[in-house]
Amino acid sequence: MEAQTLQNLLPKTLFFDEEAGALIILDQTQLPVKEEYVSLYSVREVCEAIVRLMVRGAPAIGLAAAYGLVLAVRNRPFPDTSALTEEFMKASRRLAQTRPTAVNLFWALKRMEKALALHKNLSVEALKAQLLREAADMQREDTETCRKIGEEGLKFLRPEMGILTICNAGSLAASAYGTALAPLYLGHEQGYNFRVYACETRPLLQGARLTAWELQRAGLDVTLLCDNMASWLMQQGKIDAVAAGADRIAVNGDTANKIGTSGLAVLARHYGIPFYILAPSTTLDPACPTGASIVIEQRDASEITHKWYARPMAPAGIKTINPAFDVTPGSLITRIITEKGPYIA
Amino acid sequence: MEAQTLQNLLPKTLFFDEEAGALIILDQTQLPVKEEYVSLYSVREVCEAIVRLMVRGAPAIGLAAAYGLVLAVRNRPFPDTSALTEEFMKASRRLAQTRPTAVNLFWALKRMEKALALHKNLSVEALKAQLLREAADMQREDTETCRKIGEEGLKFLRPEMGILTICNAGSLAASAYGTALAPLYLGHEQGYNFRVYACETRPLLQGARLTAWELQRAGLDVTLLCDNMASWLMQQGKIDAVAAGADRIAVNGDTANKIGTSGLAVLARHYGIPFYILAPSTTLDPACPTGASIVIEQRDASEITHKWYARPMAPAGIKTINPAFDVTPGSLITRIITEKGPYIA
Repeated sequence: MEAQTLQNLLPKTLFFDEEAGALIILDQTQLPVKEEYVSLYSVREVCEAIVRLMVRGAPAIGLAAAYGLVLAVRNRPFPDTSALTEEFMKASRRLAQTRPTAVNLFWALKRMEKALALHKNLSVEALKAQLLREAADMQREDTETCRKIGEEGLKFLRPEMGILTICNAGSLAASAYGTALAPLYLGHEQGYNFRVYACETRPLLQGARLTAWELQRAGLDVTLLCDNMASWLMQQGKIDAVAAGADRIAVNGDTANKIGTSGLAVLARHYGIPFYILAPSTTLDPACPTGASIVIEQRDASEITHKWYARPMAPAGIKTINPAFDVTPGSLITRIITEKGPYIA
Repeated sequence: MEAQTLQNLLPKTLFFDEEAGALIILDQTQLPVKEEYVSLYSVREVCEAIVRLMVRGAPAIGLAAAYGLVLAVRNRPFPDTSALTEEFMKASRRLAQTRPTAVNLFWALKRMEKALALHKNLSVEALKAQLLREAADMQREDTETCRKIGEEGLKFLRPEMGILTICNAGSLAASAYGTALAPLYLGHEQGYNFRVYACETRPLLQGARLTAWELQRAGLDVTLLCDNMASWLMQQGKIDAVAAGADRIAVNGDTANKIGTSGLAVLARHYGIPFYILAPSTTLDPACPTGASIVIEQRDASEITHKWYARPMAPAGIKTINPAFDVTPGSLITRIITEKGPYIA
């Protein structure tokens, strides 16, 4: 299959429509039933889309936030750049509060702030244009980064392998090839015939709704399982490697990713299966010496007890825990693979 | 809390109504929304109730099957005991085909067959009465067995412990105290203040719908989690022991139980947490030298992709795996606890 053909089969997660002055996102809460694009015109709408997980995945959140800053200033007049800057910084603080764990969000806000500072002597209109250019550059770079992650990751995979993944670290979480799924797409283009196994990833079912959807759509051989079936699958000898994304990587290699990732890493170690984290180098957080300093987002009980269901699936008033992420110790990770090659802690 | 009081708070999973000539079961597919009892009058209805999981849990399936044999012959006339025996054996073969993994089903059928053989010289009506007595004896013994499992299990637990469980091995899976939950109920009566953590147990959510319901109803401190959150919970130091039931235990201690159990055992070993299997001694299968000879029931894809949901949760036509059970190697089990004390393989 030609690279171009596969790329056409991958969904467009988000893009900026200059004419409309809007960020267009694929509403991931509707998948896999509906493929619906939504136009966001304001930073408020972007914040809501991030909080509601209409757009999710660490790199995609970063890009949405960058475009959110563009929208915060683009569609309104300012007497001068200092008024624009004030509005921009208000928007940045607002975006920073949407989701605490993925570092790419904060990295993207900082990069946009730097661009603003660098160009503050431009006219208001020129500055607006410059901010859009910066966000668009970030998206182009992300696409290139994802492809390189795929190339680096593919060095560790062989044809016919069974590969287990969790949550969605594919096209829908970033640009084009995604992160953890990038080597799978590249290998598929080269006829590797991978068997991919997607953990459904409770409570929000990103594996079932998003990963299974985008892999099936692109023609890969994908099998869906419930999260508690991974041990059985590994026992059966079906899994040759585990590939997961990351939301924040500490300097010592401890990695925050979707809840359940640390459990898969423990299982992989027990069954002697290599465990890979694939992420852009911007996911490395120099301010985090170890995983202990990573803040884990806790989400609402109703995601476990009610969301998706036709009727309540737990008794009323039941206590729950609902951490969105967990931290996998670096010692359980065979390799952290970035666009620059393996990261050695 | 008085023992009598707690027992009153536990649901009645199944009982035989002699006047109506019916097996009355609590329809577990309706929980936790509705507490609905259903009357079963024929072996066909009992088979359907077992297949549809209206009654489930290894010991409860065994009891339902025993009463199913009673119903197969009770509500119709026979010219002689050999005609009754023929009908009885047909029903037994039918019940044996409902679910392959739990050994208690086959054990219960064999025990009823033995009772039939022992009393075959009685009149047709006396034989019918004897079969009902046998089934009722089995239920009384199961109640006593569950209490003893609780006493034996409690020897390994201390007040204030955090205890993780999977699926439902409580009242709803057996009589009164259940199996894995029996020591929790007994400890609760003695003021142990356990913190119980219930894995929701995909795809059928027996942990969320059944375990959380019966523990909350009985006044225990219970917290619900998704299956992929167990590793995080153990990392946080919240779990002091894992307690699970069993569907079949091989001679070497390998144990088939709800899918996900083997994964929890691997995690428990990794985090240094004791892992207990609690089950009646009838769950030990002398015909199984190791777990390799245990048949694992594979169930329908729709349980993962559609069941419970208001809309499909995976793309149409997606491949799935859906094993209902897995096998935990005996080497990962700290102790197998039966009503007779720890089983040493």
